[in-house]
Amino acid sequence: MPSGDDTPRARRLLGTDRMEALSDGVFAFAATLLVLDIAIHPPGTALEQLLNAWPSYLAYVVSFLTIGAGWLAHTALTDRLARSDPLLLRINLLLLLAVAFLPFPTRLVAESLHQVGSERVFVTLYGLTLLTIRLLGFALDAYARHEHLYAPPEQGEQRADEPQELLPTLGGYMIAILIGLVVPEVAVAIYFAVALYMILFRELRPRARAG
Amino acid sequence: MPSGDDTPRARRLLGTDRMEALSDGVFAFAATLLVLDIAIHPPGTALEQLLNAWPSYLAYVVSFLTIGAGWLAHTALTDRLARSDPLLLRINLLLLLAVAFLPFPTRLVAESLHQVGSERVFVTLYGLTLLTIRLLGFALDAYARHEHLYAPPEQGEQRADEPQELLPTLGGYMIAILIGLVVPEVAVAIYFAVALYMILFRELRPRARAG
Amino acid sequence: MPSGDDTPRARRLLGTDRMEALSDGVFAFAATLLVLDIAIHPPGTALEQLLNAWPSYLAYVVSFLTIGAGWLAHTALTDRLARSDPLLLRINLLLLLAVAFLPFPTRLVAESLHQVGSERVFVTLYGLTLLTIRLLGFALDAYARHEHLYAPPEQGEQRADEPQELLPTLGGYMIAILIGLVVPEVAVAIYFAVALYMILFRELRPRARAG
Amino acid sequence: MPSGDDTPRARRLLGTDRMEALSDGVFAFAATLLVLDIAIHPPGTALEQLLNAWPSYLAYVVSFLTIGAGWLAHTALTDRLARSDPLLLRINLLLLLAVAFLPFPTRLVAESLHQVGSERVFVTLYGLTLLTIRLLGFALDAYARHEHLYAPPEQGEQRADEPQELLPTLGGYMIAILIGLVVPEVAVAIYFAVALYMILFRELRPRARAG
Repeated sequence: MPSGDDTPRARRLLGTDRMEALSDGVFAFAATLLVLDIAIHPPGTALEQLLNAWPSYLAYVVSFLTIGAGWLAHTALTDRLARSDPLLLRINLLLLLAVAFLPFPTRLVAESLHQVGSERVFVTLYGLTLLTIRLLGFALDAYARHEHLYAPPEQGEQRADEPQELLPTLGGYMIAILIGLVVPEVAVAIYFAVALYMILFRELRPRARAG
Repeated sequence: MPSGDDTPRARRLLGTDRMEALSDGVFAFAATLLVLDIAIHPPGTALEQLLNAWPSYLAYVVSFLTIGAGWLAHTALTDRLARSDPLLLRINLLLLLAVAFLPFPTRLVAESLHQVGSERVFVTLYGLTLLTIRLLGFALDAYARHEHLYAPPEQGEQRADEPQELLPTLGGYMIAILIGLVVPEVAVAIYFAVALYMILFRELRPRARAG
Repeated sequence: MPSGDDTPRARRLLGTDRMEALSDGVFAFAATLLVLDIAIHPPGTALEQLLNAWPSYLAYVVSFLTIGAGWLAHTALTDRLARSDPLLLRINLLLLLAVAFLPFPTRLVAESLHQVGSERVFVTLYGLTLLTIRLLGFALDAYARHEHLYAPPEQGEQRADEPQELLPTLGGYMIAILIGLVVPEVAVAIYFAVALYMILFRELRPRARAG
Repeated sequence: MPSGDDTPRARRLLGTDRMEALSDGVFAFAATLLVLDIAIHPPGTALEQLLNAWPSYLAYVVSFLTIGAGWLAHTALTDRLARSDPLLLRINLLLLLAVAFLPFPTRLVAESLHQVGSERVFVTLYGLTLLTIRLLGFALDAYARHEHLYAPPEQGEQRADEPQELLPTLGGYMIAILIGLVVPEVAVAIYFAVALYMILFRELRPRARAG
């Protein structure tokens, strides 16, 4: 009976399946659009142009991994939802709005890194966008928790987005934004580290096991 | 037995699952493509360029929220479908055609706002596109209602796109289009308000509850 | 028992669910990308620029409807598949390759219509692309038919892509390609008519009924 | 009971359904984005410009087929997964990062072919990207095999990405990268041949049969 609750019919009524479909679409598409921000520019030989475009590659990798980490967290969250509710769908739309916005600051960072002056401004905008995505992901989790939208945890199951997990990444972003006002390249390195941290150390234990 | 009607097999036969897949895809892509319309331009410092691009951000948010509201209404509609029919698929294609068109007037508005002359024309096109999306969404609902494609409402269930719900948004769009001929910025503010209204006050009661 | 054959598990083994997922993605994305081909250019007032861009809108609508019609036919086809096979997946990939290519000739037509000289060449390429999509759609159907991949037809069920249905559209494309060598605008009008024909008159009887 | 393991609920818990959704999205978008890399340039008549753009078409076809082949292999792999695990999701994200990157070197090759000097560098980058995609696909398979994530093979079932299948494609890529340092056009021809080989000769026996 409790498992019968999770048939496609039930999921449709709960409004989680199309929330996932739209979210997977926006995450996948935003991640793929990032490649349009990579470009090479004269002067120089082809190889020099390619090597000089390193900020493009760095911005691509950091943004892609951040979106990937956000998607992993989003999956972990929706997998545990017992039901959805209208406000959750709205918070999710705001999160997608921020995720879909990321290619813009990524492009600015890709084009400006090692340009004195503009890079500080653009790296700050980039950091604020990453921070917003993280906060909205946290809000989604906090709301689902507060409204008891999650299914009861199974034995030994780990919960994603625990407040104690939020602190390192949130702290990392805030420190990086401040540092970026002075040394933008270091800030980007911290964003890279945070993305790696979220991908590598978050929830690396299996969520569920067969059998 | 009635619930057995809604297995994946049944949904496939009814042609609603791929209608949803294509629709989710177009909604998600159109919303994500909007970011390509955001750009900064000289002259000015990096910060000035960023701040001067506010019409880009405004147009992005209004269009994203309008697509989001359209997707919420679309989900509410298809969730209640007991079956599809060929004409419904065609009306849906027309709706997607209008949704996928939205990034174009969004780009025009983003580039023209606070440019005397062109902005009136572009904001009018933008408003007409929003109006068309809304009317086609209404046509989809009216057709489904007329052809009895909806499953019978469950007790206490709210129906989306009731005619009385259509009036405020439709009226808002029509008034905004007229106002936009004189004061385009005010029209965009109204489009923003309508999108917020549709997202915040439409169907904020749960569609269904677990258990 | 026969219906038990169409569970998600069964569909996965038959390889049709992800073939549909990839196809829906490419159809939806190609249709949405078309909007990037719409652009306005000086000289003229904003309104004149907007009106002068009519070939953009025409090309957008024709391509969108052609992709929509192709998607309807594809849905009708995969809905009837009892199983997939490796060669079918390959033919499907070729079809997707042609569908994903369509935004390129669409852009050329949008930019060249009413430019003497180049428009003939570009409209011909456009027509050849449409013809290729149609032929590959037909090949997909013919192969599925030949290899008995379809489930037996249910009583009164209509089969899509019958050879007799192919002739009007194929004939229309071939005639339009020839006419386009002399009067490109007329060819585009015929492509529009063929898209409307495929959407409006193909399979407008219900594929399946509830109850 | 073993088949009950593969219900949507079970697949959700195993984390394979949304891994597939995100992957199908990225494969489909990356393949479709390739069309933006096709462009024609003056000088010459419309027909000459179109014919001179042959490297664009070649690069489009090679990249599309490579992504298609990667998708076929990915489908074959995930279809056989009995369960997912966190590290598998991470390797998959890396694979998607490489797939989504492919439009960039494709654009470079499309723009540079038959330009002495730059083409060698760009074709080498292109080959390294293809090699990376292939290696990450192999890593995904090797990890799943090592961690016993696959369901036991059914009788007569063929396993994709067997090490003996890897050698021809990997060898082809490595040889082509070396050759490309001297004769880039030949390298692109080899990439084309490898894509065809992967699509045409890999796993052309049915994966599963109905009944």
